[in-house]
Amino acid sequence: MPTIKRSVFFVSDGTGLTAEALGHSLLTQFENVEFSQHRKPFIDTVDKAQAIVARINECSRVDGMRALVFTTLIDRDIAAIVHAADAFCMSFFESFLVPLENELGVKSSHTVGRSHDASDSSNYQKRIEAINFTLHHDDGITEHDLEKSDLILVGVSRCGKTPTSLYLAMQFGLRVANFPLIPEDFERGKMPGNLPKYRDKIFGLTIKPERLNKVREERRAGSRYASLENCRYEVAEAEKMMQREGIHWIDSSSKSIEEISTTIMQELQLE
Amino acid sequence: MPTIKRSVFFVSDGTGLTAEALGHSLLTQFENVEFSQHRKPFIDTVDKAQAIVARINECSRVDGMRALVFTTLIDRDIAAIVHAADAFCMSFFESFLVPLENELGVKSSHTVGRSHDASDSSNYQKRIEAINFTLHHDDGITEHDLEKSDLILVGVSRCGKTPTSLYLAMQFGLRVANFPLIPEDFERGKMPGNLPKYRDKIFGLTIKPERLNKVREERRAGSRYASLENCRYEVAEAEKMMQREGIHWIDSSSKSIEEISTTIMQELQLE
Repeated sequence: MPTIKRSVFFVSDGTGLTAEALGHSLLTQFENVEFSQHRKPFIDTVDKAQAIVARINECSRVDGMRALVFTTLIDRDIAAIVHAADAFCMSFFESFLVPLENELGVKSSHTVGRSHDASDSSNYQKRIEAINFTLHHDDGITEHDLEKSDLILVGVSRCGKTPTSLYLAMQFGLRVANFPLIPEDFERGKMPGNLPKYRDKIFGLTIKPERLNKVREERRAGSRYASLENCRYEVAEAEKMMQREGIHWIDSSSKSIEEISTTIMQELQLE
Repeated sequence: MPTIKRSVFFVSDGTGLTAEALGHSLLTQFENVEFSQHRKPFIDTVDKAQAIVARINECSRVDGMRALVFTTLIDRDIAAIVHAADAFCMSFFESFLVPLENELGVKSSHTVGRSHDASDSSNYQKRIEAINFTLHHDDGITEHDLEKSDLILVGVSRCGKTPTSLYLAMQFGLRVANFPLIPEDFERGKMPGNLPKYRDKIFGLTIKPERLNKVREERRAGSRYASLENCRYEVAEAEKMMQREGIHWIDSSSKSIEEISTTIMQELQLE
């Protein structure tokens, strides 16, 4: 089947991140179409709306096919300008706000930019503090303040603990510590330090030895540490230890950071 | 006006993050309604769908008002089960997939979980590498490899450089270094180290002295470092330096991490 090419614009009066996320998940359902995607944030004046329409129309003309436009625009006048572009426009707000107003029996406030509102500052502060906590408790740096953590990740070196920890802190304001499980721990047959005390909030990550081998080779090519044999040993020992300690774990090998994080939150009932 | 309370479910066969993001931005348009929000990810079997319907129905019964349900469900059978719940259901996919199919002239693949697909591994690797780069170039730790950075953030201590850097790395795979501007730099009248060499990819953050004072007081209460007088001095000097060096900057005081990040990407044309 020949590949079709289409230009796509995500237009918003805010960051456009929501329009892009939903638009992107719709577009991934069309495998044989190649989409050239553009996020256009902060379109919050008539001038900016007219400029973006000119850009969209030019794109449709050059492509010889009208562009796809996904919008999250609150202001009705600006939305009307953008939706008059020579394009196939889908409005995420228009489609749902009116039905929601009817269901709730109240009018929406039509206020721009509330979804990432920084003035919701208790939530903002919580995220910043969680990021700081998580940075200060990365890779087993310290056991200080572990009682204040929401979650403690364990797993062999390079299995994805740090990105997962930071994502959980950034997105959900969770204070996450992470500790590597290393050969010394396997020899002693015990989790590092005081971790057994916090068993209820520990979650394990594991990884396929073949994938771990690849990841480690990129950092220390040819080392014993990176060798497939050692990766097999470490992964088997780590899984044995987690099983013995009764710790839940998942295999991170074929999962995105978002999927790993969501699974952990679900299993530990963090919200 | 009395506050209305409603239960809300975000139901997805994937992480549910997209359903939650769009649902959340719709709900923030209703100020006088108190929403109790639940994300229900990985609803990808008939059994799980039936269990979640039981949960939703119970919630509608207890509330005495039907729940709101936002879904991103690809499988039509599972979607049909969930949408039969005693609730007000809005399907983000159903509403847009069919119009998109018509516009594109092709059928969608109806494949679950493509939007955070880890098998798109070049993108995944890029994010992981960007996070590692950013962690290793936080807070002026090193000038090593700065030529490989996509962006260098500068600003006074505690103005939001670290969370912004990590967000840009995590979300967009950008390699971000950040350097504090400190009193010694102001005395020398020069940006730290080799930074002037990279002027084109430097972006500044600034902050209102009153807010900086509050943030610093939380860390080092009563110190000269945290004092309003010193905060005023540092912010004024940093802004003077950025102006002299011709560096773009924004005030982070009332912006979310997402808004700051989006603004920076827009100004430096990073995509």
